Amino acid sequence: MKKTHITHDSLLLILLVAATFFFTSSSATSRNTDSKKKPLVPCKKLDLYFHDILYDGHNAANATSSIVASPVGGSGTRTALSPSFHFGDVIVFDDPVTLDKNIHSTPVGRAQGSYIFDAKSTYSVWLGFAFVLNSADYKGCITFAGAEPVTLKTRDVPVVGGTGDFFMHRGIATTSDEVVDGHLCVRVQIRFYECY
Amino acid sequence: MKKTHITHDSLLLILLVAATFFFTSSSATSRNTDSKKKPLVPCKKLDLYFHDILYDGHNAANATSSIVASPVGGSGTRTALSPSFHFGDVIVFDDPVTLDKNIHSTPVGRAQGSYIFDAKSTYSVWLGFAFVLNSADYKGCITFAGAEPVTLKTRDVPVVGGTGDFFMHRGIATTSDEVVDGHLCVRVQIRFYECY
Amino acid sequence: MKKTHITHDSLLLILLVAATFFFTSSSATSRNTDSKKKPLVPCKKLDLYFHDILYDGHNAANATSSIVASPVGGSGTRTALSPSFHFGDVIVFDDPVTLDKNIHSTPVGRAQGSYIFDAKSTYSVWLGFAFVLNSADYKGCITFAGAEPVTLKTRDVPVVGGTGDFFMHRGIATTSDEVVDGHLCVRVQIRFYECY
Repeated sequence: MKKTHITHDSLLLILLVAATFFFTSSSATSRNTDSKKKPLVPCKKLDLYFHDILYDGHNAANATSSIVASPVGGSGTRTALSPSFHFGDVIVFDDPVTLDKNIHSTPVGRAQGSYIFDAKSTYSVWLGFAFVLNSADYKGCITFAGAEPVTLKTRDVPVVGGTGDFFMHRGIATTSDEVVDGHLCVRVQIRFYECY
Repeated sequence: MKKTHITHDSLLLILLVAATFFFTSSSATSRNTDSKKKPLVPCKKLDLYFHDILYDGHNAANATSSIVASPVGGSGTRTALSPSFHFGDVIVFDDPVTLDKNIHSTPVGRAQGSYIFDAKSTYSVWLGFAFVLNSADYKGCITFAGAEPVTLKTRDVPVVGGTGDFFMHRGIATTSDEVVDGHLCVRVQIRFYECY
Repeated sequence: MKKTHITHDSLLLILLVAATFFFTSSSATSRNTDSKKKPLVPCKKLDLYFHDILYDGHNAANATSSIVASPVGGSGTRTALSPSFHFGDVIVFDDPVTLDKNIHSTPVGRAQGSYIFDAKSTYSVWLGFAFVLNSADYKGCITFAGAEPVTLKTRDVPVVGGTGDFFMHRGIATTSDEVVDGHLCVRVQIRFYECY
């Protein structure tokens, strides 16, 4: 009978231990997920717009960006190596960030940095810039770095770091753009998958 | 009696299993924390200085940095779009890194990369550079990328990667600067929160 | 006898619980390791080549890269601050990526971005570029950012983000180069340690 008895308790024990195993395993995973969120479930989301007006020599007051470099020919003079796609042009920008497509909306921060046309036979840019946010909802900076193949309707760009409310964050930004009131309006939908 | 007996053992079992659950859960979390440190407790810290002397046309021997690009006007000529804040200027630098504010101290490495003035109505820069360290204490590179609003007394800049002793590291650098002996001295206090 | 009996079951229980503890602990760790791989065991590897032909004023059709900026002297003219090491030169590139050293092999994508000569007394560059891959095996972008001390036979460069097949990835790229058929061929061996 003792044997049977042990078997009985052991069975209960094994079942409970098995349940414990699965429970603690998933718990450990979810704790990990709490601190460093995994795909499909962003730990934070943002949906913002920034507005770009390129300097053309006559709009210094309104311009928010400027070409600062372009291909240099063998003689040291500037040359258009791939004029159709602006290959080699470097543009620095200081663009207002808003909650909607209206450039006159109250800005919640600035998009500041540079983009570089880096394709000879299509439009594509390298992006290195930051959102510098200072609103009631968010204070802090977000670093974007990567390729943006602008001929696609939507593009994914890596978000590689942040400060303030975005301390140590990582994620993906989906960008798209349209011309609004004559200027370039870029929508940026950020999904953070690593928050702190 | 068997029922009571089972209840007795089951109670013990449940208590032990419950203890196991909390113990294994926290153990799993701390293991995760061991390999990827979370906020408030940096897994590594550095406190370094770098020294910048901008090329002015007459100091080629001592200069450690140079303007390499600036806004281009509609006519293709260089123009000062926002002269007060150097908007659009791109500066490349190769600055010595030291353990203190003395530019003549033995360097432990170089700060190499570029910064871009990217604000039209205040001073702010985009930073893309690396510490290339080669000292008795540290060998390896650290990548910095992000906004540095230089009008603030201290600024936080994302540290997004590293190599060598800083393999795969991430963290935050707090920068501040002062003029020492006529040159710009930048203090960089790095706290890594992800080490390997 | 009841006491003995309890002791017997309890012993079994303690052993099983202990086993459960170690099992669940290692399980939790390995789950964590599954989702975010740690050093020594990359979660993904790539071995690719890209090919660079610098624009010299006469090869616009074949050139894949161009100097776009260089040091500006006090008078506003371009000047060679450190002519031996190209200090301050900014090069934008759009280089084909292949599976071997042959520039004529079917490209699997492009290496697009910029490098900046950022050392006054040796050769070293800052790299900010992306692999934009579009092959049968891989579709997506990989962001590289950091120092590349090109005088070393092999260099480690941080991989700080990605999209598509490389969503949220991080890792290290080991680069080396050689001149093949008159052009610069760079081998890039990527080991990702964080996959999703």
